Amino acid sequence: MKHIISVMVENKFGVLARIANLFSARGFNIDSLAVGETEDPAVSRMTIVVRGDDKILEQVKKQLNKVINVISVNDYLNKEHIDRELILFKVNINKETKDKAVKILDKANADIIKVSDDAITVEIVGDQDKISALFKALEGLDISEIVRTGRIAMAL
Amino acid sequence: MKHIISVMVENKFGVLARIANLFSARGFNIDSLAVGETEDPAVSRMTIVVRGDDKILEQVKKQLNKVINVISVNDYLNKEHIDRELILFKVNINKETKDKAVKILDKANADIIKVSDDAITVEIVGDQDKISALFKALEGLDISEIVRTGRIAMAL
Repeated sequence: MKHIISVMVENKFGVLARIANLFSARGFNIDSLAVGETEDPAVSRMTIVVRGDDKILEQVKKQLNKVINVISVNDYLNKEHIDRELILFKVNINKETKDKAVKILDKANADIIKVSDDAITVEIVGDQDKISALFKALEGLDISEIVRTGRIAMAL
Repeated sequence: MKHIISVMVENKFGVLARIANLFSARGFNIDSLAVGETEDPAVSRMTIVVRGDDKILEQVKKQLNKVINVISVNDYLNKEHIDRELILFKVNINKETKDKAVKILDKANADIIKVSDDAITVEIVGDQDKISALFKALEGLDISEIVRTGRIAMAL
């Protein structure tokens, strides 16, 4: 089961390393991680997506709460929330595939940042369903570079 | 000087912790960090924003290149690139401030996800100029929760 965990931390040296170590020591791989500032410059918010055994994850969350500099830990699994991710990528095109690619991107409400003779640079924001649907629609086209922010979430 | 560094890594246990430790050991604080999957499921891409002494950062980049599981390191400082960040936040409103808030958000092309009697939930994507301009325009209004992905970048 995928969990989206939000950890509020004091913005200090070494906190990120300590938290990454904690997951890694328990054999948890992190699917995605987004760390950014908050409305309080002294506080950062980490949004972590992990998959793994629920019982062990409960222990990890308890340990997180004990880490100095951790302010709070929230798991969105059974809470009403929105989640979003931002992705930049390029679709390699030629004369034959350009129109098809543009049509698919327009239909998916993706933002076309730049079009050159051989590539389209694209920005898309959405939940995982929207993003999966776009990449499914693009199957067969040549995608050369994908940069993802990782998911962020907010309680509704 | 702020640097945006992109690190391609093998998607394995402990890599994130090793890289976070490396910055932390050199006294670098990470302003933001985004880790996501790429077109190759075995490879993740970390986009790291750091500020600090350029000479020490050069050393950190050399060390990064030596870390097992690091595939490549790219600094976008003097390269043509786009960068984008996604932010979710809430503006607390009342009858008096609602219209003003909606007007500012519409003008900034922010996406309004939900409006209730006491709060507007907002999604915004853009470069740092666009994001700063929006938060400046919202000054004086009550922003209660900010979740940022951290910046991601792509060469143009």
